[in-house]
Amino acid sequence: MASQSIQQYPSQLLEEAVNAFAKLPGIGRKSALRMALHVLRQPVEEADAFVEAVHRLRHDVGYCEVCHNVSDAGVCGICADASRDSRTVCVVESVKEVMLIENTGQYRGLYHVLGGIISPINGIGPGDLEIASLVERVADGGVDEVVLALNPTMEGDTTSFYIYRKLADFDVKITTIARGIAIGDDMEYADEVTLGRSIVNRVSYQTI
Amino acid sequence: MASQSIQQYPSQLLEEAVNAFAKLPGIGRKSALRMALHVLRQPVEEADAFVEAVHRLRHDVGYCEVCHNVSDAGVCGICADASRDSRTVCVVESVKEVMLIENTGQYRGLYHVLGGIISPINGIGPGDLEIASLVERVADGGVDEVVLALNPTMEGDTTSFYIYRKLADFDVKITTIARGIAIGDDMEYADEVTLGRSIVNRVSYQTI
Repeated sequence: MASQSIQQYPSQLLEEAVNAFAKLPGIGRKSALRMALHVLRQPVEEADAFVEAVHRLRHDVGYCEVCHNVSDAGVCGICADASRDSRTVCVVESVKEVMLIENTGQYRGLYHVLGGIISPINGIGPGDLEIASLVERVADGGVDEVVLALNPTMEGDTTSFYIYRKLADFDVKITTIARGIAIGDDMEYADEVTLGRSIVNRVSYQTI
Repeated sequence: MASQSIQQYPSQLLEEAVNAFAKLPGIGRKSALRMALHVLRQPVEEADAFVEAVHRLRHDVGYCEVCHNVSDAGVCGICADASRDSRTVCVVESVKEVMLIENTGQYRGLYHVLGGIISPINGIGPGDLEIASLVERVADGGVDEVVLALNPTMEGDTTSFYIYRKLADFDVKITTIARGIAIGDDMEYADEVTLGRSIVNRVSYQTI
């Protein structure tokens, strides 16, 4: 039954809602129909609360003046936290990576959210990203290290290299997150590039 | 990484939107976050179109006067279709089952959508469902057969039995969809009740 397609909708409004849900990432038409029927069965107040939350997210959310992360205030909680190391700035693609890194509890510096990566195929150039504001932040002084934490795709690497060139003339250390064998992974199944990098960038042996 | 929980949100609006998405059926917190970030990256018009489609679904959708299926007009396309067999009425729980049955292309009668099933634990009694309107439809004449197509759960069976009792005094044939071994399934893995019913309700052998 999983492969059958449901094509006939008894109502155009229902079909339009299914189409809207199906545009969400990872949602196929069957899941979208389940969501639409769920909304249809919900009390009006619950459906309104859902609509309101999504509408407010898109219209009312703000961005931190310093790091451009999503934020309700002018300066986000991380940038405003005086106990953090303001001399280290980690450059990430989006708020998602901020949350992932924050979740590790291993990083005490600040962030700079680019809002995307350079992608000529999608028409995204350096001018569409928060790169000028990063250069400005470094030029203003007070930053000792910029950590490039972009995904190791062609586009991520291009963006990292572009930023590296822009910051090369400043007195700032530029680092990148370590690539290597994931903890718990077998070396046998690692790709050659990752295994190669993990040998080149070997670190002192640590007991736990 | 799949089991990690993301708890710190940089924005309350983002958190509220994630909570809203996570209430959709089959959506966990990670998928909900991906959806919220997707909305955040979308052009405003696309996000507005999504919100509008969900809002209209809940507020503007109507129900067919005859069969109570979701419908944009007063009478739905199925009930209005003169080529269908109006003397056979299939009783289903919701619009989903109408779509599933329509999708088989094997049924040419009409429907009657109950809008739920009797469920004392959820406080849903016969009065909350479109049962009185079904009895009225049968009492008005013109119906030869009522096909009960509810799920074979305790609640579905209770609802079927309740409807059977209500219709017992009318001159109408009451049938139920066949239960048996699914096509392609191995008898070895069928449960005893299903296998038992499939033997009791055996049918003439057909080629193809």
